[in-house]
Amino acid sequence: MEAITEYLSAAKTRFELGLNQYLDSYPCKYRPLWDAVEYALTSGGKRVRPALVYLGADFCRTDPAKVEHIAQAIEMIHNYSLVHDDMPCMDDDAMRHGKPSVHKAYGEGMAMLAGDALLNMAFERLLSVADINSYKAAAYIAEASGMCGMVGGQCLDLQNVDWADTDYESVAKINILKTSALLRAALCGGAIACGCSDDELKSLETYALYIGEIFQIVDDILDITSDSATMGKEVNQDSKNGKSTYASIYGVDKAREYIKDLNSKAKSAVSAYGERGERLAALSDYLLCRAF
Amino acid sequence: MEAITEYLSAAKTRFELGLNQYLDSYPCKYRPLWDAVEYALTSGGKRVRPALVYLGADFCRTDPAKVEHIAQAIEMIHNYSLVHDDMPCMDDDAMRHGKPSVHKAYGEGMAMLAGDALLNMAFERLLSVADINSYKAAAYIAEASGMCGMVGGQCLDLQNVDWADTDYESVAKINILKTSALLRAALCGGAIACGCSDDELKSLETYALYIGEIFQIVDDILDITSDSATMGKEVNQDSKNGKSTYASIYGVDKAREYIKDLNSKAKSAVSAYGERGERLAALSDYLLCRAF
Repeated sequence: MEAITEYLSAAKTRFELGLNQYLDSYPCKYRPLWDAVEYALTSGGKRVRPALVYLGADFCRTDPAKVEHIAQAIEMIHNYSLVHDDMPCMDDDAMRHGKPSVHKAYGEGMAMLAGDALLNMAFERLLSVADINSYKAAAYIAEASGMCGMVGGQCLDLQNVDWADTDYESVAKINILKTSALLRAALCGGAIACGCSDDELKSLETYALYIGEIFQIVDDILDITSDSATMGKEVNQDSKNGKSTYASIYGVDKAREYIKDLNSKAKSAVSAYGERGERLAALSDYLLCRAF
Repeated sequence: MEAITEYLSAAKTRFELGLNQYLDSYPCKYRPLWDAVEYALTSGGKRVRPALVYLGADFCRTDPAKVEHIAQAIEMIHNYSLVHDDMPCMDDDAMRHGKPSVHKAYGEGMAMLAGDALLNMAFERLLSVADINSYKAAAYIAEASGMCGMVGGQCLDLQNVDWADTDYESVAKINILKTSALLRAALCGGAIACGCSDDELKSLETYALYIGEIFQIVDDILDITSDSATMGKEVNQDSKNGKSTYASIYGVDKAREYIKDLNSKAKSAVSAYGERGERLAALSDYLLCRAF
């Protein structure tokens, strides 16, 4: 088995090839909306969510070609949320992936519409494959991206401002909804589309819960310890916006200890599956390493 | 057969009962996001789109109970577009259904998130019924609400500002995308979920194209001839925003003649279906009457 970094790199290449083909063939390109949508989707990013979709198929020993539309849809959902999150009425971020954010490049009206277009396009793409397991994956993803998942988390996050005394329990709830839900939807959506069993789904959900929390806490640590050139976006945003995170409440060292513990839990959630779970374990290790 | 006004009134009652039940049972009510979503969905409106979903089922001689989730989803899509359209970076409307628009009542960040939540909720609701025809209807609706439909039309509309010399061909294209697409999705989505044939779908699409244009032109006429107390929203917005409409290009009298012609075409699209098409013909007459 290749190293996880090689797997992720191949997944990124594969994903971007498929995405570009889909975008090239899209029939309705009204400018400047289309330009803003393309800009948002092709400006970079690690493509972790598409890789999770492939890993879901991989876990079911299925060709990732079967879940290409799901990988694209999840990345569209992720990008719509970034475009809207960056707007002045939300987090007011001027940079994203080292470039001006969409509202800086295309104006606020077009950025809002581009986010809407991306979310619509995600479901259009998800539902373009007439297959019962794929439809079930779409239903699962819709629940995870909505108010019981990502959007619910964004609501809580929008209120997590100047809450210097917020306890971590509240912060964790925000993380689970805002970040874990879509990572879970990626991995589990991929697996559902490939016909995974209920028990397998439960294991993947548990795993995704832990890596989602790791993912978010690593981001929060990097917001404190890294610089904007490395990150491709502004740093120290949490303290600027008065947001509580695990790292701001307990400090960076304790946060690093905590995610090590989460990493053990994530790996044990898939350890029963032998070789099928190994790549997921390697991914959890990899996500952890970014914070050290 | 009852008069169309009675049908619409019964449809509105039926729809709002089902919608309230769904909202009551929704498991994730994060405030104030939830309040904004409820406010947007329950603040009024004629509920024309849900009635069209029922009419699609009716055309297939199917119990409207089978399409309740589709009626709710279409109204959620309609309302997300209104919430976002009303924001300062779009049309900047302070009133909707005689009340403060969502961003006035809950702030811009929460309004954007409420729009996002409504669109997500629409697909969550659409995909909550595990039935192959219902899934097909969801795919059809996703296409109509996205860049090849409503969102594409909003992009063109956002650019239709200070274009005093816009010809009607361009305006008609905006109307078809911005307004007709979702009305078509409502009627045809309802019919697809009930297993309509390809020929039936084609007839319903033609009909929907015409009533969509009537619907939009009537709105444009009322923007000139009515007052804000009657409309529940600001009037003379098109001339204020420098937007071209059929009525602003050719005048109200010519616009009234034109929609009479569209009405004949709409009715002839469904005349071959005998009794099954009668209610649709009556609806077209009814939509027309609002402009006289």
